[in-house]
Amino acid sequence: MAASTGAAVLPEVPPSIEDDSEEPLAAPAEPVRKVPARRATAESLAEKQREISVSEFFVKNRHLLGFDNKQKALLTAVRECVDNSLDACEEAGILPELRIEIRELSEERFRIAVEDNGPGIVKAQIPKIFGKLLYGSKFHRLKQQRGQQGIGVSAAGMYGQLTTGKPVTIVSRTSPQAVPHLFEITVDTRKNQPLVLKEEKTDWEKDHGTRVEIEMEASYKKGRRSVDDYVEQTALSNPHCKVIYTAPGSETVIYERAIHELPEEAKEIKPHPYGVELGRLMRMFQDSQERHVASALKNDFSRMTPKVVDDILKIAGVSPRMRPRDLDTPATERVHKAFTKVKIMAPPTNCLSPVGEPALLKGLRARFKADYYDAVTRPPAVYRGNPFQVEVALAHGGELPADELIEVFRFANRVPLQYQASACAVTKAVLSIDWRSYGMQMSKGALPSGPMVLMLHIASVWVPFTSESKEAIAHYPEIIKELRLALMEVGRRLGVHIRRGKREAAEAKKRGYIDKFIPHIGIALTEILGLKPKETDKVVANLKTILERSRENMA
Amino acid sequence: MAASTGAAVLPEVPPSIEDDSEEPLAAPAEPVRKVPARRATAESLAEKQREISVSEFFVKNRHLLGFDNKQKALLTAVRECVDNSLDACEEAGILPELRIEIRELSEERFRIAVEDNGPGIVKAQIPKIFGKLLYGSKFHRLKQQRGQQGIGVSAAGMYGQLTTGKPVTIVSRTSPQAVPHLFEITVDTRKNQPLVLKEEKTDWEKDHGTRVEIEMEASYKKGRRSVDDYVEQTALSNPHCKVIYTAPGSETVIYERAIHELPEEAKEIKPHPYGVELGRLMRMFQDSQERHVASALKNDFSRMTPKVVDDILKIAGVSPRMRPRDLDTPATERVHKAFTKVKIMAPPTNCLSPVGEPALLKGLRARFKADYYDAVTRPPAVYRGNPFQVEVALAHGGELPADELIEVFRFANRVPLQYQASACAVTKAVLSIDWRSYGMQMSKGALPSGPMVLMLHIASVWVPFTSESKEAIAHYPEIIKELRLALMEVGRRLGVHIRRGKREAAEAKKRGYIDKFIPHIGIALTEILGLKPKETDKVVANLKTILERSRENMA
Repeated sequence: MAASTGAAVLPEVPPSIEDDSEEPLAAPAEPVRKVPARRATAESLAEKQREISVSEFFVKNRHLLGFDNKQKALLTAVRECVDNSLDACEEAGILPELRIEIRELSEERFRIAVEDNGPGIVKAQIPKIFGKLLYGSKFHRLKQQRGQQGIGVSAAGMYGQLTTGKPVTIVSRTSPQAVPHLFEITVDTRKNQPLVLKEEKTDWEKDHGTRVEIEMEASYKKGRRSVDDYVEQTALSNPHCKVIYTAPGSETVIYERAIHELPEEAKEIKPHPYGVELGRLMRMFQDSQERHVASALKNDFSRMTPKVVDDILKIAGVSPRMRPRDLDTPATERVHKAFTKVKIMAPPTNCLSPVGEPALLKGLRARFKADYYDAVTRPPAVYRGNPFQVEVALAHGGELPADELIEVFRFANRVPLQYQASACAVTKAVLSIDWRSYGMQMSKGALPSGPMVLMLHIASVWVPFTSESKEAIAHYPEIIKELRLALMEVGRRLGVHIRRGKREAAEAKKRGYIDKFIPHIGIALTEILGLKPKETDKVVANLKTILERSRENMA
Repeated sequence: MAASTGAAVLPEVPPSIEDDSEEPLAAPAEPVRKVPARRATAESLAEKQREISVSEFFVKNRHLLGFDNKQKALLTAVRECVDNSLDACEEAGILPELRIEIRELSEERFRIAVEDNGPGIVKAQIPKIFGKLLYGSKFHRLKQQRGQQGIGVSAAGMYGQLTTGKPVTIVSRTSPQAVPHLFEITVDTRKNQPLVLKEEKTDWEKDHGTRVEIEMEASYKKGRRSVDDYVEQTALSNPHCKVIYTAPGSETVIYERAIHELPEEAKEIKPHPYGVELGRLMRMFQDSQERHVASALKNDFSRMTPKVVDDILKIAGVSPRMRPRDLDTPATERVHKAFTKVKIMAPPTNCLSPVGEPALLKGLRARFKADYYDAVTRPPAVYRGNPFQVEVALAHGGELPADELIEVFRFANRVPLQYQASACAVTKAVLSIDWRSYGMQMSKGALPSGPMVLMLHIASVWVPFTSESKEAIAHYPEIIKELRLALMEVGRRLGVHIRRGKREAAEAKKRGYIDKFIPHIGIALTEILGLKPKETDKVVANLKTILERSRENMA
């Protein structure tokens, strides 16, 4: 089983005679290698090994964050700022009012500003939030939020810095009594640390809130996937939010609130045992504040009743009074296996805040002139221990274009997703449905065609995006299943509607024939049989009744 | 322009009488907010802010790295190890011989091993390479390699650790004189630092090389997107590599070398001015070892001749003798703008190592029984300053299934891409071609259908994947354009082939009719006109000639 003996001895190392003579006959015909001008050795390779900072990584890989081209960069930067503003407002219980401005400074250079009436940011936190990647409050919490990682807004600033050399400007105030502060910040990409270029007290007419300005190379376009489109969709999926939007060369547009109440607040939850991997469980036990494994299980997880904890520990053969950090790998593994052998309640779902069927229908009606609208909000479900909830709304007919592929609008935690549709679990679910059985047209591998738009929303404490640019949702089977169930529900009702429409159209057509031809038959009968007008009327009426009846029986 | 005055004063802050009385009439009808049970303030939010380690980030976001499900996890882990092995062998000028083993330990638990005959890894580097994310030799170099980031293999180990609690095992030896070392390593995810559990001298029959073993939760399946499939495709796109592959429940398969020479070594290059953003240029000037900006431009970039440097600095109004680090933002910006005003040669392309048309054709012929094969290797092109090169190969007809959508095989730097086809620039390019004009069938929004397979390869010093899991290539317009050009070239030739085939089929059919019916016409004429056999033969021959000629004229 000795592999490639005799092959590829490194010439830098003086070949010892013993080595050569030990295997003189091994695979002699195998040409060893083509000698390149300078070959690497383990030692020369070692010299090149280096640590890479996460900022360097994302500068080089900025397409991972949604900065692959100038048009998308503009959208991504605005979206990251808006996500942060809306999350902060909702967490502080404030009805959000956003001001979004895009100013064109020169060709391909823009300055964006997003201003909110949120709780503001305390002074000491501003540099890290805007000048350091992977820093934030949302990463370690299981709660439905728009932001998840602590990357977005600092990456947007870093992109501005990369393309224009300019820092991000932040103004923030935490209360009418607090002094507003102004910062100018860049990221030291080699160290992933903030560099504060300016920090001063300032004047601001706002009682509290945050304003972020980023200068960047970008390109502004109207139409699909534009910032305009994004702002409109955001206003639709956040009807409690007022948005004042100024785009280059356009009048300011104000999206007024449709709802004057905040959505039900999404609660933070603890991890559910079904979604915790062995390695994570080992770490949770190491880190637990609890003295006994029984209380660690009960308090560090959701849905662990005393009886469930008891059953688990019995199955695992672990004493409830052991200290959590004293459990070794095999014991932890037994506990982990026992999770799957005990019935545990599904995770709580008050951590989710769906849009709801009425708001979905309202949104669709406002935007599309159609004949038929429908919406469904599925009950919550779970993937990898994370609760999530799927909503689907649909409009059909009316003024929607009949000859094109349908349009699909995707939302995740109320944020519109505009790119990478084909990579998204949502699209996969739509494609996996046989829409022909619901009366739509569909060819192999393509979306259905016909006068229809679909709107799909996934709300979750953790949306598994396929990349950090938050454009598409990963193909978790549980998520696709829920999407399919929702689609099939609206699909079945749509099928009934379309078939009824077809039947009605067919009936109307037949009825039309009857109405059209019977008078002529009457005239013919009158002439042939020499009937009087009254007799003719009677014969025609009879004929019509008989025909109508037979038509109904056929239908 | 004061926004939402009076709205949303935070109740924790005792409202001062002055504040209230100043704006008693502002927007009184606007309902302020629904008061949630516990509201966040700037201060309470600040307490939750935390740094996130890059390992924690990727544990939570493991779908970003290709670990979204158990089947894919197995493939990703094998691929990361193989990428590292092949890169190391080629860099050291060694013809690679790989041993890939997958052992099933129990249901859903596997132990993978990848062993190479590469240069080995020096002892001091082993912990960091396998126990720290974002550490490696490839990130800062512009060279065609399989690995790019310094994430892959440590992430594979981290996934093993997460799902089984087990460390990664590494054996490595750098020369026959060196002692082989064995390590067991895990990642301390909170700090993104290696934890060495075991380190000892060991015995190994190999002169040099590295063996990596990872135990993980996984699922092994045969068929499309399987590890089997990946190994087969890898052997195809790396004909200089010998692979010995053992899968669970299967005989060991040996893929022998088809070529006994290493591919032309891809050279490392310096960045090309056209692809350098302003922010990066600023940093390059700050970091330059050169004393004068003129020499910094000349030596830190590719394709900068003295004349080009002169022209650039003149346009920018910058003295050639300035120290690079003394250039301020406006001066650097002028230099950056001047790049675009000067004609600079395209970057060198000896950094690329395409598979080549003969090897592509060889691969296709070996794998598919078809009637027609074609391949094209495009000349190198550039995106964002990075050279890249596109290759397309195609097989048509024969035993390929005629009624299905075509199959598309994608490769990047010789690595097969098996997931996320729909998100990939390659698929986008294939879909953007009107294959009907080349004689194929195609419906809106779908791949063409017919008896065809396509193989597309992108070689680059930096492949822009849409995510860290390296499954799809981002939609850079330059890349899509090159793919389209290559596809159109093989497409046009395919069209000629298909049309010729159709014409020949039609001709054969007509000729068939002539051959079939003319004897009968002859018999009829004989009977009607009373011809002698000889006369009949002559008439029939004449008739045939005339018909053949008219058929040819029509064709």
